[in-house]
Amino acid sequence: MEMSSKLLENAVAEISQLPGIGKRTALRLALHLLKQPTEHTQHLAEALKKMREEIKFCKQCHNISDTDVCELCANPLRDKTLICVVEDVRDVMAIENTGLFRGLYHVLGGKISPIDGIGPSQLTINALVEKVKQGAIKELIFALSSTMEGDTTNFYIYKQIKDCNIITSTIARGIAVGDELEFADEVTLGRSIIQRVPFENSLKSS
Amino acid sequence: MEMSSKLLENAVAEISQLPGIGKRTALRLALHLLKQPTEHTQHLAEALKKMREEIKFCKQCHNISDTDVCELCANPLRDKTLICVVEDVRDVMAIENTGLFRGLYHVLGGKISPIDGIGPSQLTINALVEKVKQGAIKELIFALSSTMEGDTTNFYIYKQIKDCNIITSTIARGIAVGDELEFADEVTLGRSIIQRVPFENSLKSS
Repeated sequence: MEMSSKLLENAVAEISQLPGIGKRTALRLALHLLKQPTEHTQHLAEALKKMREEIKFCKQCHNISDTDVCELCANPLRDKTLICVVEDVRDVMAIENTGLFRGLYHVLGGKISPIDGIGPSQLTINALVEKVKQGAIKELIFALSSTMEGDTTNFYIYKQIKDCNIITSTIARGIAVGDELEFADEVTLGRSIIQRVPFENSLKSS
Repeated sequence: MEMSSKLLENAVAEISQLPGIGKRTALRLALHLLKQPTEHTQHLAEALKKMREEIKFCKQCHNISDTDVCELCANPLRDKTLICVVEDVRDVMAIENTGLFRGLYHVLGGKISPIDGIGPSQLTINALVEKVKQGAIKELIFALSSTMEGDTTNFYIYKQIKDCNIITSTIARGIAVGDELEFADEVTLGRSIIQRVPFENSLKSS
């Protein structure tokens, strides 16, 4: 696509490097910005730059944070002996939104995935194992997605900490609340029967 | 969605103001930028800011341009007596890509659309009528989309210039090259029969 302006061409090239945004969408976004007041674009550009340059990762849980230690880790009301291991920041937000977890998190930053060239050393697994070996943690909850990579990562971590006298658990897999059985996949339905829970437990909703 | 960082929250809020991008996509884009080197985000922010602050609209045709008069209008080889009226910059790019038009353009900046609050005064219609009245233009080609708004805009312009001794034309509507008749809609197929062209003309491909 030939454009009448190098400035526009440059902006479109930069926008289309974002995941899931092609040349056409990038052009649409750029033309939208041109129709808006200049301040809109300035605010957007400032926010992006400021975020990238000033954001920190929490020293303890590797969650995104504005400070050296994130709000969650700094909160004295949270249970520091219970750690939920998650893949990335979005999982922390999702679990926080439930309002049902009062422990802390450990953000791995991804899953072990040799195909994508991600090995254990690119993740924060060593820091987690170190934390467990210090002995203050009682339980580790694995909350990775149940894919091949997720299972591999769970098992890799489990192997390194299994002698540490610590409880390990994974989040429950089963039929989603409100879903109908006939539309559930066999693996999930099968697992939900094998790993059934006492009826009394299901009465506790929180 | 509660986020652990105000910087991230701010960036996500700014990104999600773009058309077609919701909170979730905005978060995905922001986290993508955080995984990339800082320079990526700096280049993106710079490109956006520079584009918005420095881009100009051509004084003559209102096309996007880096200079006061765009490359097309400044080109002495283009036919200045033939003007193609289009809706926005993307249409100029599309027609330029065909390589078959050697005249100039006039970018309206939209269509008359009372529902969206766009009247003739928000568009560059007055400048176009002014240009026509100066008498240097021989033919005006309407290349707006054939919607109610496009037809209204065409007619609004036509009414103001119909006494100016100037040829007006619209781009041909018909079955797309390579399309099969059985799948064409009735309106298009009907028009393509009423407005049939001499067979000899169809042999000229450019």
